[in-house]
Amino acid sequence: AEPFKDLPPMCAALFEAKARKGLTFEAIGKAIERDEVWIAAAFYGQAKLTPKDIASLSRVLELEQSLLEADLGANWWPRRGLGPMPPNDPVLYRLFEGVLVYGHAIKAIIHEKFGDGIQSMIDCQVTVDKKEDPKGDRVVLTFDGKFLKYSQW
Amino acid sequence: AEPFKDLPPMCAALFEAKARKGLTFEAIGKAIERDEVWIAAAFYGQAKLTPKDIASLSRVLELEQSLLEADLGANWWPRRGLGPMPPNDPVLYRLFEGVLVYGHAIKAIIHEKFGDGIQSMIDCQVTVDKKEDPKGDRVVLTFDGKFLKYSQW
Amino acid sequence: AEPFKDLPPMCAALFEAKARKGLTFEAIGKAIERDEVWIAAAFYGQAKLTPKDIASLSRVLELEQSLLEADLGANWWPRRGLGPMPPNDPVLYRLFEGVLVYGHAIKAIIHEKFGDGIQSMIDCQVTVDKKEDPKGDRVVLTFDGKFLKYSQW
Amino acid sequence: AEPFKDLPPMCAALFEAKARKGLTFEAIGKAIERDEVWIAAAFYGQAKLTPKDIASLSRVLELEQSLLEADLGANWWPRRGLGPMPPNDPVLYRLFEGVLVYGHAIKAIIHEKFGDGIQSMIDCQVTVDKKEDPKGDRVVLTFDGKFLKYSQW
Amino acid sequence: AEPFKDLPPMCAALFEAKARKGLTFEAIGKAIERDEVWIAAAFYGQAKLTPKDIASLSRVLELEQSLLEADLGANWWPRRGLGPMPPNDPVLYRLFEGVLVYGHAIKAIIHEKFGDGIQSMIDCQVTVDKKEDPKGDRVVLTFDGKFLKYSQW
Amino acid sequence: AEPFKDLPPMCAALFEAKARKGLTFEAIGKAIERDEVWIAAAFYGQAKLTPKDIASLSRVLELEQSLLEADLGANWWPRRGLGPMPPNDPVLYRLFEGVLVYGHAIKAIIHEKFGDGIQSMIDCQVTVDKKEDPKGDRVVLTFDGKFLKYSQW
Amino acid sequence: AEPFKDLPPMCAALFEAKARKGLTFEAIGKAIERDEVWIAAAFYGQAKLTPKDIASLSRVLELEQSLLEADLGANWWPRRGLGPMPPNDPVLYRLFEGVLVYGHAIKAIIHEKFGDGIQSMIDCQVTVDKKEDPKGDRVVLTFDGKFLKYSQW
Amino acid sequence: AEPFKDLPPMCAALFEAKARKGLTFEAIGKAIERDEVWIAAAFYGQAKLTPKDIASLSRVLELEQSLLEADLGANWWPRRGLGPMPPNDPVLYRLFEGVLVYGHAIKAIIHEKFGDGIQSMIDCQVTVDKKEDPKGDRVVLTFDGKFLKYSQW
Amino acid sequence: AEPFKDLPPMCAALFEAKARKGLTFEAIGKAIERDEVWIAAAFYGQAKLTPKDIASLSRVLELEQSLLEADLGANWWPRRGLGPMPPNDPVLYRLFEGVLVYGHAIKAIIHEKFGDGIQSMIDCQVTVDKKEDPKGDRVVLTFDGKFLKYSQW
Amino acid sequence: AEPFKDLPPMCAALFEAKARKGLTFEAIGKAIERDEVWIAAAFYGQAKLTPKDIASLSRVLELEQSLLEADLGANWWPRRGLGPMPPNDPVLYRLFEGVLVYGHAIKAIIHEKFGDGIQSMIDCQVTVDKKEDPKGDRVVLTFDGKFLKYSQW
Repeated sequence: AEPFKDLPPMCAALFEAKARKGLTFEAIGKAIERDEVWIAAAFYGQAKLTPKDIASLSRVLELEQSLLEADLGANWWPRRGLGPMPPNDPVLYRLFEGVLVYGHAIKAIIHEKFGDGIQSMIDCQVTVDKKEDPKGDRVVLTFDGKFLKYSQW
Repeated sequence: AEPFKDLPPMCAALFEAKARKGLTFEAIGKAIERDEVWIAAAFYGQAKLTPKDIASLSRVLELEQSLLEADLGANWWPRRGLGPMPPNDPVLYRLFEGVLVYGHAIKAIIHEKFGDGIQSMIDCQVTVDKKEDPKGDRVVLTFDGKFLKYSQW
Repeated sequence: AEPFKDLPPMCAALFEAKARKGLTFEAIGKAIERDEVWIAAAFYGQAKLTPKDIASLSRVLELEQSLLEADLGANWWPRRGLGPMPPNDPVLYRLFEGVLVYGHAIKAIIHEKFGDGIQSMIDCQVTVDKKEDPKGDRVVLTFDGKFLKYSQW
Repeated sequence: AEPFKDLPPMCAALFEAKARKGLTFEAIGKAIERDEVWIAAAFYGQAKLTPKDIASLSRVLELEQSLLEADLGANWWPRRGLGPMPPNDPVLYRLFEGVLVYGHAIKAIIHEKFGDGIQSMIDCQVTVDKKEDPKGDRVVLTFDGKFLKYSQW
Repeated sequence: AEPFKDLPPMCAALFEAKARKGLTFEAIGKAIERDEVWIAAAFYGQAKLTPKDIASLSRVLELEQSLLEADLGANWWPRRGLGPMPPNDPVLYRLFEGVLVYGHAIKAIIHEKFGDGIQSMIDCQVTVDKKEDPKGDRVVLTFDGKFLKYSQW
Repeated sequence: AEPFKDLPPMCAALFEAKARKGLTFEAIGKAIERDEVWIAAAFYGQAKLTPKDIASLSRVLELEQSLLEADLGANWWPRRGLGPMPPNDPVLYRLFEGVLVYGHAIKAIIHEKFGDGIQSMIDCQVTVDKKEDPKGDRVVLTFDGKFLKYSQW
Repeated sequence: AEPFKDLPPMCAALFEAKARKGLTFEAIGKAIERDEVWIAAAFYGQAKLTPKDIASLSRVLELEQSLLEADLGANWWPRRGLGPMPPNDPVLYRLFEGVLVYGHAIKAIIHEKFGDGIQSMIDCQVTVDKKEDPKGDRVVLTFDGKFLKYSQW
Repeated sequence: AEPFKDLPPMCAALFEAKARKGLTFEAIGKAIERDEVWIAAAFYGQAKLTPKDIASLSRVLELEQSLLEADLGANWWPRRGLGPMPPNDPVLYRLFEGVLVYGHAIKAIIHEKFGDGIQSMIDCQVTVDKKEDPKGDRVVLTFDGKFLKYSQW
Repeated sequence: AEPFKDLPPMCAALFEAKARKGLTFEAIGKAIERDEVWIAAAFYGQAKLTPKDIASLSRVLELEQSLLEADLGANWWPRRGLGPMPPNDPVLYRLFEGVLVYGHAIKAIIHEKFGDGIQSMIDCQVTVDKKEDPKGDRVVLTFDGKFLKYSQW
Repeated sequence: AEPFKDLPPMCAALFEAKARKGLTFEAIGKAIERDEVWIAAAFYGQAKLTPKDIASLSRVLELEQSLLEADLGANWWPRRGLGPMPPNDPVLYRLFEGVLVYGHAIKAIIHEKFGDGIQSMIDCQVTVDKKEDPKGDRVVLTFDGKFLKYSQW
């Protein structure tokens, strides 16, 4: 698939192994004790695996640990940010549209509740939950990030 | 402030009245029985007020109801989407960065949990909560949107 | 052809098999009980085939089912959106021009007829018909999409 | 509203008169014997009114005919194309997304049915209909445009 | 040369055969009874050859007809539009500059002479002639395109 | 109309006088002994009027000569290039599309007929003619520009 | 000056008062006990003044405190980010060039010294010092920002 | 990693050798008597190694000196500037954000302290230091560049 | 003229006074002992006048010195860089084209003659001369800028 | 090096041969009686070699003449314009900055000295000279181009 060409080749191998084993991210996440969104981010080269994560992934996906370490280990650092902006894919575009439409309101509320600063996207945890609903199931997407106050000097 | 120049003049009047009355969006939201993020979105011209909302806002902000109706009432429809993309302001940029860094992972999890479709940004509710934390308070931003399945025909 | 380089390699194989068999999308659509536009969208990686679609396509195009499944089956999700924007090709550009010239009028009529919301492009069916006309045949392009009302909360 | 700043001042006057009279585009269209989408396009400066249209509009909206003629009459030609591309507003964006996602499929079907040419967006009629549906009403958007064959010379 | 990477591989073969045979587009055009600009456009993948054109080209360039048919025949449709915009090459840029500098004047004259419509670039023939002149020879570039009137409905 | 905001204010006055007098560019061109396209270009600030042109225009349009001289006379130089690129208006876009689709072919023919150089858009005359045709009248747009050979040194 | 048009009107008043009083940012910074870079950032609407800062500025610049409070006080939040990117002005462009040329090296060193995370531009202090040097004085620009480690979850 | 595709192939070999030897840029910098940021810049093709640097690197990394010389020696000149702008990676983006937010303030202070000129990014030394801090370690990034005065002539 | 809207209002006054007095930049340059290109750059807000320049200009153009000082004096610093890029105007575009076509060759020669560094555009003098030639007069444009060597550290 | 990927493969061979022979562009230029800038432009595919140039280059660089002719000979025409704009490399960017900062002044002087027209970048010779200076050597870059007067018709 298209974003792989911007990623280390080992990322494609991770996706192939996942498909071959028939595992979901939820299953992989549970097996290596990580959230499913975070481990999916790591597959897309957007998070740095710890040595323990690499050992666990190697076991769960039956991939040679030394190859994982060579490509995604201590000497590799994520180049974060993936794909064109604005995104073409409607799933991604809807998130982008959320920023376009609700961004200023979110900013206003953050300032009112916290003061002059930002929600960190570094010290932040992202989760996706399914909420069943007779009128149609709902996706609950949560960003839980530390508030960072602007320096004054 | 800058995004007002792309908004109906009444939006600036809303912000001025809010400042004059010393009200937060939380207070206004409670007074008119709306979530604070949604009412902030309406101030930025990103949501359509109902006649009841207009009547309530007129009372709470002491703004002439007929003026609100003329500018933001039945004949007005939001032109949604505000500000440059990518956004310059760091608060807004961090949300955009969330799409850049975690977007593909979120898409993968949505597909695994729900199938081929998207999280609606139309039938969606956005909330911002403050979670106190001794290591620094946290912003909890939630998008709760209906899953929409792709048509096949 | 050019958009193939952004698509899974199996997409090129689909087009080649179609040419080899001398089939139109109309013929393929009839054989697998899908609309011709939808099946063309699937060839361009813009729709997700069901297992039944894959079995049918494999039969109609004489392509190995397991290869189709490996590339475009359960583990593959469409990355929708294809080609540069604005498009260079005049056929595609005319559609884009339709948005530029008539988009605001269409938005106004949707709001008048349905209220504050959008026409879904997810729960939407697209068809192309030929209408014979002595002054020159006409292309009738139809988007039939569910109206989605904006949330208020 | 925002796109007016790129339009002749008379366009804003048309919208104000329409609001003042409490008329829909459907009502105006019927009164002057034009389709509602076409007349909305004319309000947005995207179509050229005939002298008869101007006389009718003047009567229906109670606007001075000579002012309409001076601004939108014989000496005025539409500068077509309105608003930023890609569009920010979700209603407009969905149309644009239709081109991104289904454009190549539509092009393929047009070529198969008609040969090497395009669907005209000049000799084209655009309509928006409401189709009631117990699962949610549907917007039916139709582009009915002449097929134009490419010259060879 | 650079634009070939966006073209079917057979296009490069056409240019190589032309160079090997030492033929100009004028000579090829005469041999296959087409204008030189049109046949050059076809070499660049911007026009669709008829079966007769393919047979003639095969003979004139000594290229296997079946290969030409496989790549550029019935199953192939031009993806028109080539190269970056604005173009970097000064020959192409000058044409683009003609649109920038004289485009509004041309539009005004077309409207005055023909009314509300456009010059078709589909039913259009483009020719390049050499006019000898003692002060320096001149390039005479002509676009002869049908006037298309805008629909009203 | 929109491009006036990037032009000297006198340009709007020229258009208003033309409308008031009910003159076409053809009529003005004849009266001042200039081609209609060139004089339209001058109205759009894309050509420099001579003192004689100013005197003639002043007479024909009944505009004060000293005002024309102050704004568009000896101290004023055209800032050529007008409007967004790519252009939104379909009349202008079709010219731009001509460059996209036929530009490489035109370049190839120019090189074959003239060698390594360009068609000047400075020493160039642009004309628009109407060719009557029972199948629909045709716009004949001609660029007659000097060939300029590249320096070698 | 140009960036003022994107700033609250009070910002222009600050610059005018500064010029009228003949004060440097260094002098203002000392008078109100802030660094000169930070106070310059506040003049450009890029930092939020505390009530104490506003009181001090009002005194130092002889500007009415209530006006400062109305425009830049409790109800105002900075919209950070100013001017076009890439910047045209050579002083600003050189900083941008620093990111282009040395950014990847800086990223590599940050990762080696600190691990997977970023230098905060929120909890960051920026200073500009003059270092005299017989070969030409030097500008010493320092960003002193907290290291933020990426979350894993 | 991604920026390598825009770099001479020898750059990838440098990074591989560094990983294989388990060396940090700090260690390499010390071994060849260069600052760690500068040597990292050279690995990214953003600085020109001297013959002595090449000899030292060859020894430290056990890479054939003649290969280094062939690719990065006398006949090679850096093509400076790397990666997309605005950058996607959050580490790089924060530097870019520093220009967006504090650039105008830095420009103002440079002019006040030095006059009309710029900080050179050519005669400039960039360093990254770690400052330990109980509230969280800090990255201290310094640009030490010569002031260059604008010519007047 | 168009670029004035991005300039201090005094710049328009300078151009008006120049036109009123009927002076060329050459004449003004001689009168105040500056090169004509530099003084033209100052009129366009691209250079900083010295107090002596302001006094001289005030005398030559009969403009109040105190007004010149208030707008363009000690408290004003040029915001350099003017107009869109790529430029639309053919005179400016040709300079830009010079960078596109000959930039890499110029870079190669600078490196061969001077080593790893750049031609300064800060310590640089730009002149425009007329060279008479029977085949057509020639513009001789010269950039005379100091070579700056890259730091190594 | 990076711009080679947009050039005919023979261009890389030219650079390799030049490096292998240890020749500067100055030496090559003298050997084949061309200016060093022009021959460097030809290496970058930005100028068309004559048959005599090809024969000379073949001899000087010991490259097979028939290969040079096949790739860069009679059937090849330069596609001029190279690299991204704005350019990232500081050497190229400074030239671009020259257009941004001094372009309007240069245009004004050209008009004053020559009238309404442009400096040709086609009939233009570009040279780079080294001027020794005790305060630092200077790069003298000259564009000597024919003045071209705008047509009036």
